[in-house]
Amino acid sequence: QAVSAQSAGVADKGPYRHYMLKEIFEQPTVIADTLEGRIHDGRLLESCFGVGASALLDQVRQVHIVACGTSYHAGLVARYWLEELGVPASVEVASEYRYRDPVIAPGTLFVSISQSGETADTLAALRGAKARGCLGSLAICNVPESSLVRESGLVLMTRAGREIGVASTKAFTTQLVALRLLSIALGRRHALTLEREQLLVSELTALPAQVEAALALNKDIERLAEAFADKHHALFLGRGTQYAVAMEGALKLKEISYIHAEAYAAGELKHGPLALVDPTMPVLCVLPDNALQEKVVSNLQEVRARGGELFLFADAGLDVHFEGSGVHLLRVGPVSDSIAPVVFTVPLQLLAYHVAVLKGTDVDQPRNLAKSVTVE
Amino acid sequence: QAVSAQSAGVADKGPYRHYMLKEIFEQPTVIADTLEGRIHDGRLLESCFGVGASALLDQVRQVHIVACGTSYHAGLVARYWLEELGVPASVEVASEYRYRDPVIAPGTLFVSISQSGETADTLAALRGAKARGCLGSLAICNVPESSLVRESGLVLMTRAGREIGVASTKAFTTQLVALRLLSIALGRRHALTLEREQLLVSELTALPAQVEAALALNKDIERLAEAFADKHHALFLGRGTQYAVAMEGALKLKEISYIHAEAYAAGELKHGPLALVDPTMPVLCVLPDNALQEKVVSNLQEVRARGGELFLFADAGLDVHFEGSGVHLLRVGPVSDSIAPVVFTVPLQLLAYHVAVLKGTDVDQPRNLAKSVTVE
Repeated sequence: QAVSAQSAGVADKGPYRHYMLKEIFEQPTVIADTLEGRIHDGRLLESCFGVGASALLDQVRQVHIVACGTSYHAGLVARYWLEELGVPASVEVASEYRYRDPVIAPGTLFVSISQSGETADTLAALRGAKARGCLGSLAICNVPESSLVRESGLVLMTRAGREIGVASTKAFTTQLVALRLLSIALGRRHALTLEREQLLVSELTALPAQVEAALALNKDIERLAEAFADKHHALFLGRGTQYAVAMEGALKLKEISYIHAEAYAAGELKHGPLALVDPTMPVLCVLPDNALQEKVVSNLQEVRARGGELFLFADAGLDVHFEGSGVHLLRVGPVSDSIAPVVFTVPLQLLAYHVAVLKGTDVDQPRNLAKSVTVE
Repeated sequence: QAVSAQSAGVADKGPYRHYMLKEIFEQPTVIADTLEGRIHDGRLLESCFGVGASALLDQVRQVHIVACGTSYHAGLVARYWLEELGVPASVEVASEYRYRDPVIAPGTLFVSISQSGETADTLAALRGAKARGCLGSLAICNVPESSLVRESGLVLMTRAGREIGVASTKAFTTQLVALRLLSIALGRRHALTLEREQLLVSELTALPAQVEAALALNKDIERLAEAFADKHHALFLGRGTQYAVAMEGALKLKEISYIHAEAYAAGELKHGPLALVDPTMPVLCVLPDNALQEKVVSNLQEVRARGGELFLFADAGLDVHFEGSGVHLLRVGPVSDSIAPVVFTVPLQLLAYHVAVLKGTDVDQPRNLAKSVTVE
């Protein structure tokens, strides 16, 4: 059996204390690798999806994205991207999708996302969708010789390199890059203009440098982690694509620091979770510079009014002020909205990492978890 | 302005200590009221959706369900019901739907769910969907003179009567009944046979008695609550429709007892949240008698292996055994799967109630929350 150079690569922590930190810092490189040869002259090259991709993509009427854990969060971001460009999309966790009776309408592209390509539920969902007659299948995956890749008609490899830390970091951000490429390919057939495509591609090209800039926050976040390490709970808030970023940030903190962090769409706060907010329940929020920012700030004012300590990651271009103490404000970017989910993910990864180090957990191999979930 | 008898009705706690408990115990009656005149001779009467409903329902190709909070959880259950009968459905929180660019394909029925009919985000989402040219709109609502009812083409009233407790109970279960009726109406035009419809209708008819039987667990649950009241966290697990029931159960506990309860689809446990499980993190699970039960039990074995205390609400017809201490098992039903989400909701409402009473919180008016969220 052939093994890719990447999978065979020798793992080495280099100067980093943990694989996870090394992998977080590899993100500018692996994001650039994932873009390599796939965009040219300001446009996407559709050949990156494999032979016959263009003809198949012409027939796609809607997309079913199915994944687990962190990969599911990448899918949630993609749903916003796809629908914004006119492509109907649904996203679901594989363990649910595979056991219910999903309606697969004509023209459905089944998109699976998995770092390992061996996630049992995701594989079963792919097989089920094929049996029900989906138009085609696309795997977004990090391991070329995996079952998911072998069994999918189209493939878009993330080129994250081997990921050792159980808590996925660089696999997630390269999945987002791959999904951004997919949304451009499908968007072309719907609401995406050539001009807009060129803008989106140029923003993608800027991504490695933007992630590099976010990594420069490492020392600030290490300090911030001290204010977080004694917490038992947290609420993570965001709106739009950043709701999924909040979900991923909360999952990182759960996985390696064992803090019970839960994410909410900020607009849902008033419908229940606000009851939890008091001075012992910190609230973390990702606030990019987009049309929703005033709405988010208004949600945060309610958190402040209830005495909640606020950890805010806000775009550097925003004019944000909160009165009083108990507000930790960190500036990210400025970054354009189309790539903000990737960039805002980075400080949340670093926060989870530093909190876990302070708590003394086994960062690369957290309790109870395995790297690839190859059983149900 | 006309006011319905129901909205004008005088509120009275009767023999109950709190409105919430009174409203929980009203459920058999208000569920029967919600079915009244809407089924006949083993079949659904489509006239219940209003004038011209049948002609409109004929044209429906897919459904967008939009709601907030508890009503959103009702929508999540309905998605399983609809897709199982061949009707494509999506569900989304209103604060997200209204601010993104949802693709509204031809033949889309927009379904809003709201107890008050004045939920600001849900109303805005309805207006947006109409502006984008949805085929039609249906409101599932408890207040006849509300904005949502006035602005929707079709209406299916829940007849829960006035709900005073901020944490919604009888509004939720009557919403589920209304959504079960909707799924029958649309299912007829897809995969639902006459024979199956008659079965579903007979199971609906049995619902008031089944809920009554679940209410008889009140004393047992009051005792169970003592084992829960000192917890700071909880994970609520379910699969399929019961995932949404777990979400609703967790929300009740959050709202009135301020315990940080979070729900997960049981199959997602291994993808992160299992790291949180230790002896201080109780796990609650709803386990109906359906095809997924073995899968759920296997997920629970992993919880047990990590020392997690288990609170299990299992169908009386199931043969379930867990070794060792730290397992609290309560029997529900036996109940048929099509109505199990309604029946299994009841013990979770009672648990949240009794925990809140033990904790001494203001059950009917929890901190930070309002009954109707009429602002963003």
